[in-house]
Amino acid sequence: MRVDGKPYRTVWLDADGWSVWIIDQVLLPHAFKLRRLTKMEEVAQAIFAMQVRGAPLIGVAAAYGLCLAMREDPSDQGLSRAGATLSAARPTAVNLRWAVEQVQRALMPLPPSGRASAAYGLAAQLAEQDVEVCRRIGEHGLGLLRARHEQLGCPAVLNVQTHCNAGWLATVDFGTALSPIYQAHDAGLPLHVWVDETRPRRQGLLTAWELGQHGVPRTLSADGAAAHHLQRGRVDVCIVGTDRTTARGDVCNKIGTYPLALAARAHQVPFYVALPGSTYDGSLQDGVREIPIEERDGNEVRQAQGLLPSGELATISLAPESLPVANPAFDVTPAELVTGYITEHGVLTRAELGRLGGGGP
Amino acid sequence: MRVDGKPYRTVWLDADGWSVWIIDQVLLPHAFKLRRLTKMEEVAQAIFAMQVRGAPLIGVAAAYGLCLAMREDPSDQGLSRAGATLSAARPTAVNLRWAVEQVQRALMPLPPSGRASAAYGLAAQLAEQDVEVCRRIGEHGLGLLRARHEQLGCPAVLNVQTHCNAGWLATVDFGTALSPIYQAHDAGLPLHVWVDETRPRRQGLLTAWELGQHGVPRTLSADGAAAHHLQRGRVDVCIVGTDRTTARGDVCNKIGTYPLALAARAHQVPFYVALPGSTYDGSLQDGVREIPIEERDGNEVRQAQGLLPSGELATISLAPESLPVANPAFDVTPAELVTGYITEHGVLTRAELGRLGGGGP
Repeated sequence: MRVDGKPYRTVWLDADGWSVWIIDQVLLPHAFKLRRLTKMEEVAQAIFAMQVRGAPLIGVAAAYGLCLAMREDPSDQGLSRAGATLSAARPTAVNLRWAVEQVQRALMPLPPSGRASAAYGLAAQLAEQDVEVCRRIGEHGLGLLRARHEQLGCPAVLNVQTHCNAGWLATVDFGTALSPIYQAHDAGLPLHVWVDETRPRRQGLLTAWELGQHGVPRTLSADGAAAHHLQRGRVDVCIVGTDRTTARGDVCNKIGTYPLALAARAHQVPFYVALPGSTYDGSLQDGVREIPIEERDGNEVRQAQGLLPSGELATISLAPESLPVANPAFDVTPAELVTGYITEHGVLTRAELGRLGGGGP
Repeated sequence: MRVDGKPYRTVWLDADGWSVWIIDQVLLPHAFKLRRLTKMEEVAQAIFAMQVRGAPLIGVAAAYGLCLAMREDPSDQGLSRAGATLSAARPTAVNLRWAVEQVQRALMPLPPSGRASAAYGLAAQLAEQDVEVCRRIGEHGLGLLRARHEQLGCPAVLNVQTHCNAGWLATVDFGTALSPIYQAHDAGLPLHVWVDETRPRRQGLLTAWELGQHGVPRTLSADGAAAHHLQRGRVDVCIVGTDRTTARGDVCNKIGTYPLALAARAHQVPFYVALPGSTYDGSLQDGVREIPIEERDGNEVRQAQGLLPSGELATISLAPESLPVANPAFDVTPAELVTGYITEHGVLTRAELGRLGGGGP
């Protein structure tokens, strides 16, 4: 998508054909800085420090990390060491381990001398696959937004509510929940997006930043305000992403998604989930009972990061360290609250989710 | 209530019999500092700067401001000038104007020489009235919490969810929504309180601070996490405050209250509103249509205040000033979602609200 009018992806090869560029997302929305990575360890560090984030993106970034590793030490030992280092950068990220294992398995049978170039081919393929999945989600979602716009009698603006960041910053390009929005905007459908701040990590600021850079009108508000907007008729459709969706359609996504779905239902506003097939987990049924919810460091709630008047980035303490904090990272929205699932294969009902096949990414 | 083991109110007379003490709430939860006010202008400034906040408290503080003014200039002109200055400190605060007018009306017929001592009597009376209303709300709420505890088979802990700060810091003592909690805790009922952060102004931090100082176990979480706690069965009862409640029982309260009420309903958890009679507005019916919602400065969402590692208080920017922000301060919870109203006259149903009589404070 565009930044300052120029098209970008979140990860790409340099013109030199081997070094890797990323956007340092830790600095967003305060500063847009690119980083060139030349060693596997730098990729692992970028993943660990969340300079790259979002399940699909860190998988692709890790694949490029293996490329850099193979340039330095393409031995069997070098390959397993690099895989272990990269996987350890975010121990709970399923996509990360999956991408690393996928590339490792493909390289292992090859002679060391051929591994680096094969790795670059695999990484590029993973990146293109992700872009294509997101592009298709956008295409199917566009149809849905067009239909909703017509259903409402073609209002001057179609208001879309989203939560967290399921945009291009979390993928290689386009995003999942935001892909339909970008396609609709580019197709001339008049859109405005309500962006939840998404406490505690405020991924809404990334969403607001990327939408703004691409020219999509958007407004940020506190998470608690979304139900009020819905009650006042200011929202025509909700679209969110998902980290994991069960066979019966229960949706695990960023904390705060479930109350949004409840409010959408209370006001009969359609609630869609953008779902890459890789996040469908057919091995689970009851999301509330079966999906373990990650409990994260309470300092994410107690502290905040931002710019001082001097322009310097600083972390401040909002509440004392001694204050007990609960910080569940995700919640589960029961399938009954979901109007439909926007996948790369079309917009599916819960009954049709089985088409996505197996389990995990 | 207690702070560091010592009982406090939020406003009180010094032992000298004329100067006024307040807790500087702007510094909470970072520092507990008291301020002695000796001039009407200092009281107006403390109200303006939100060193004292909460509708009942600023009304009483303003009454003490008139006392200080009458010591300096008890003329008719002095009385109207002081009233105007104090009322202007928070132009939208209904309680503030009401308290000022109440005291002005009582003083005007008196000879100037008698006004100061009469003012002190009136201010003390307003303070005691507020304490008594809150105490009674606590008493009736205690019965309700006891009944809920028994209804659930006397669990080891009764979990209460609240939103915003309707505690003693917003009143003279006890609070409204928190008064039942303090009384229950003091009576030995085993309680734990889930405290919503309450973005954007984070009044939850005040709630967590005052509960902690009084020894009530509590846990803070992001607003978006409350529905998750309810879904997981971690909440037994919700109690919130209200800024204004209509004849049919629609509740205007801090933004984020409505989604909490929706989530409580989804999980059949009782949702109570603590309601001093003064906030009942019998002249309104449909809260969603009739109550204007204050839209506040977007910088409340874009910025955050807290302590730097150096211990210095600082304001940081979370999002650029150019980012459009919607910042509605309140929302309206329809009466259908409210289980009952805890008033100084008992726990009322919506049908019984009419007993509270007229309109406004």
